[in-house]
Parts: sequence; structure tokens; C-alpha cells
Amino acid sequence: MIIIGEKINGAIPSTAKAIAEKDADFIRNLAKIQTEAGADYIDVCASVEDSIELDTMKWLIDLVQEVTDTPIAVDSPNVHTCVEAMKYCNKPGLFNSVSLEGDKVDIAFAEIANTKWECVALLNSDKGIPKTAKDRLDVFIDLMAKVKEYHIDPSRIHIDPLIEMLCTSEEGISMVTEVIRGIKEQYPTIHVTGAVSNISFNLPARKIVNQAFAVLAMNAGMDSFILDPLNQDLMGMLFATEALLGEDDYCMEYIGAYREGIFGQKK
Amino acid sequence: MIIIGEKINGAIPSTAKAIAEKDADFIRNLAKIQTEAGADYIDVCASVEDSIELDTMKWLIDLVQEVTDTPIAVDSPNVHTCVEAMKYCNKPGLFNSVSLEGDKVDIAFAEIANTKWECVALLNSDKGIPKTAKDRLDVFIDLMAKVKEYHIDPSRIHIDPLIEMLCTSEEGISMVTEVIRGIKEQYPTIHVTGAVSNISFNLPARKIVNQAFAVLAMNAGMDSFILDPLNQDLMGMLFATEALLGEDDYCMEYIGAYREGIFGQKK
Repeated sequence: MIIIGEKINGAIPSTAKAIAEKDADFIRNLAKIQTEAGADYIDVCASVEDSIELDTMKWLIDLVQEVTDTPIAVDSPNVHTCVEAMKYCNKPGLFNSVSLEGDKVDIAFAEIANTKWECVALLNSDKGIPKTAKDRLDVFIDLMAKVKEYHIDPSRIHIDPLIEMLCTSEEGISMVTEVIRGIKEQYPTIHVTGAVSNISFNLPARKIVNQAFAVLAMNAGMDSFILDPLNQDLMGMLFATEALLGEDDYCMEYIGAYREGIFGQKK
Repeated sequence: MIIIGEKINGAIPSTAKAIAEKDADFIRNLAKIQTEAGADYIDVCASVEDSIELDTMKWLIDLVQEVTDTPIAVDSPNVHTCVEAMKYCNKPGLFNSVSLEGDKVDIAFAEIANTKWECVALLNSDKGIPKTAKDRLDVFIDLMAKVKEYHIDPSRIHIDPLIEMLCTSEEGISMVTEVIRGIKEQYPTIHVTGAVSNISFNLPARKIVNQAFAVLAMNAGMDSFILDPLNQDLMGMLFATEALLGEDDYCMEYIGAYREGIFGQKK
């Protein structure tokens, strides 16, 4: 189970404010508390104007590295920003993200091929977001051809099957679980990742939907999660699900995470 | 989704105290609040000495029927108590429970055969609780022979596959989900039920394990739940899971239950 802490993202209003005001302590604290909460990667996404994106990324990455050794996920829709931001990182992290749009995947894979960097890859292409499981798995096949071409081990790839909002669906999440299962069947060592909270857009009591979705997605094979690791109920749900799925003998990891205060401690 | 409200049970200390003190208001309130929280059945289990069990059941059932029309689940390990308690009920309810131990199933099925009563049936026999999925499904086959013999429609049966504590398991819940799937494959209209909280005995943060289990059990086919309907997080998880599994178009039931205050309202 891989936790990608999502809180240092300019799309989140409080983080955007800290970025605008150059509030270094706020950013350092987000890196620290996410590490303590069990994050395996600290995602860093500036979400600012292009002209200042790279400077902002450098400022954020430097701050994170002042307080934690947890590797960084360099996160931008602009593949060139990710490539440049890699250079500010003290150790290999997570390239977030590529897709089959344009030449993104070639630019990214050429950079990470002979490194220990891992990479998030989204299942969209120049044709947009595929509507059916079959079409998404076709994009996956094309993507894996690129992974092979650059001699990247599948275990370094985190496939994001693209989680869409539940409220407009008539079939629940059957399409995305079919995609997840299809990916893991073909490449058992690959990771499947996603932003859990996308599922609950426009619904009330979103946390409940997010939690139930995380359980079902993990059951289908998702093993990498982009989320707020301070959300104790969600973190607890992931540890409980690992135990329920038989991946945690005698619940030792579940009990250990509870004792470390990762969940079940706050009201 | 069928909710069997479990709170009127002498095994729960506060309920035991109310029974001992003949606190009628306490019992009536439990019936009322469970109905408001969405219970489809109000379970009534005395858990007292044999000599006063039937009188206690009558007292409890009368109190429940003073305040709600929700059908009653007559609950006792003694099949004769259940048979007698049926007579106190104003309308058909749920016989909880039978198993293949001794002549239980014949006594119970003879009583309910030509009625609208439904029945919980546990997958144990005179040989005890089967250890493997295959052995449990063998008990299920024997049980369904009895269901057929008494001309009871499978849709009136709630099979309890027997949920055991996770903490002593090395394989998680794979055995019980295999049993649930096997039951539903053979009889799509049958119900699968269980006491959700059994799963988390001896673990910390039990509510989290219960919630994750409920999601996975529903995913496998469980559609009847013996639980505390006042547990808003657990109720919310069931509604969210129905939506995620594609059984709730556009999340209308989820949103409706939220608006009715069944979940997401209390902190």
C-alpha cells in the first residue's frame, strides 16, 4: 500500500494562500504532518500561472526537503515542469504524471528510464478519456508498449485508471473496477493509483463515499492512493481492508498503525 | 438492503439492565429510534434464564408493538422460544434463527411454511461450525433441501454464513466471501445476512473494521445486515456501497437517506 500525500497542492485553497503569501512554515508543516501520518510520497503541485510555476515548485520542494526525507511526487499537468522539478529533488521520487497525450510519455520516460524514479500514468490519450473499460485497457496496452520501449520495469509505474464522479453514473464503479482488474491481471507487479476523492463530487457526506470506494478499489487491486493522510478514517479503512483481504497476517500492520496513531485516535 | 436492528438484546449491558429493571420506556425508545433510523426488522432477544425467557420475550414484543409497526425478529438460541414468541407478534416477522443442529430446522420450518414469516438460517450443523468454504456450502445444500421439502420460497430465507473474528485469521475474509458468492450463485433471490460486528472482536478501532467488512461483504452479495442502525457511519457505508455497486441510479437512495438523517448528520 502506497500513500501519496496530496495536501501540498495549490488547488487546495489553504495551500494556495500559503503559496501566494510565501508562508514557508505552513508548507513545511504540511510536509511534516503528512510524513508522520504515513505518507510514502509528498505530492508537490504548484497550481499557479505558468510564468512562476517552476520557481514555485523549487520553493515548495526545497521546503519539503528541509523537514523530511520522504520522497517527493513532482506534480504538474506540464510534463516539462515535472522534468525540471525532478532536478530539485535530493532523491528519486514519483513523476506525476504522464499520459498518451502528445509526446508527454516520450519526454517523461526518456528522463526517468535510467533512474529509480517511479511514474504515474493516466489512461487518457489524444482522443480524450476513453468511455469504456475496453477502450481504457487499449490505452493501457499502448502505454505499456512505451514502458517496454524505455526498459522501465512495470513495478515503477502507477497506472491511474481515471476515477470519475459517481453521481452521474448508472452503473456505479463497475467500469473502473474492471479496468483495475484488467491492469493487475496483465501486470501483477504494476501499481494502480488514483485520487480517491474524485468519486464523491457533488454528493453529500463525501467522506463516506470516499471510504467505501477506497475499500472496493483496493479489493479490485488498487494499491496506491492519492489522498489526505491526515484523514484518519480513510487511512484506517485502508489498513482494515488490507487485513480483511488477507494481506496482513493476524492484523499486525493494522494494530501497529493504530498504535502509531495513524487512525482511530482522533474523534 | 435489509436492516435488522440489533439493540433490543439482553447481551447488550444497557438493554440487560432495562430488562432486569422492567424499564419499559427504555425498550420502547430502542424500538422507536431503530425504526426511525431505517430498521426493517426490530430484533428481540431476551438473553435471560430459560425459566423467564418466554415471559420476557412477550413483555419485550408487546412494548415494541406499542410504538412501531416494524416487524419483529424473534431471536433466541432456543427454537421453541422462537416458535412461541411468533404468536405474540401482530404480523409476520423474521424467525432468528435455525440451523441444521438437531431437529431445529424441522420444528421451525413446519411453523413458518404456510406463513409469510422469513427465517435466518445459520450454516452450522451437529458437527459444529464447518472450517472450509466447501464444508459450509455443503451444509447450505443440506439446508436448502429442507427449504424445498417445506415448500418455502428461497427469498424468505436469510442465510448467515457465520462471520468469525478477523484477528485469528491468516487469510482475511476470503473464506466467508467465497461462501457468500457460492450461496448467491445458486439462489440469486436468497438473502445473505450476518452480524457485522463479529468480524472485529479483539481489534482496536472496531468500527473501522466493521465498516470495511460491510463494504466487502455487500460486494460479495450480502444484502441483510444485523447491526445497530443508529451507527450512522456504518449505515452511510451501506448506502454508499449500494451506489458504488450500481444498485442506486444517480445515487438517489443515498441522497434520500442522507436527507432523512440516516447518516452524515451527527458528528
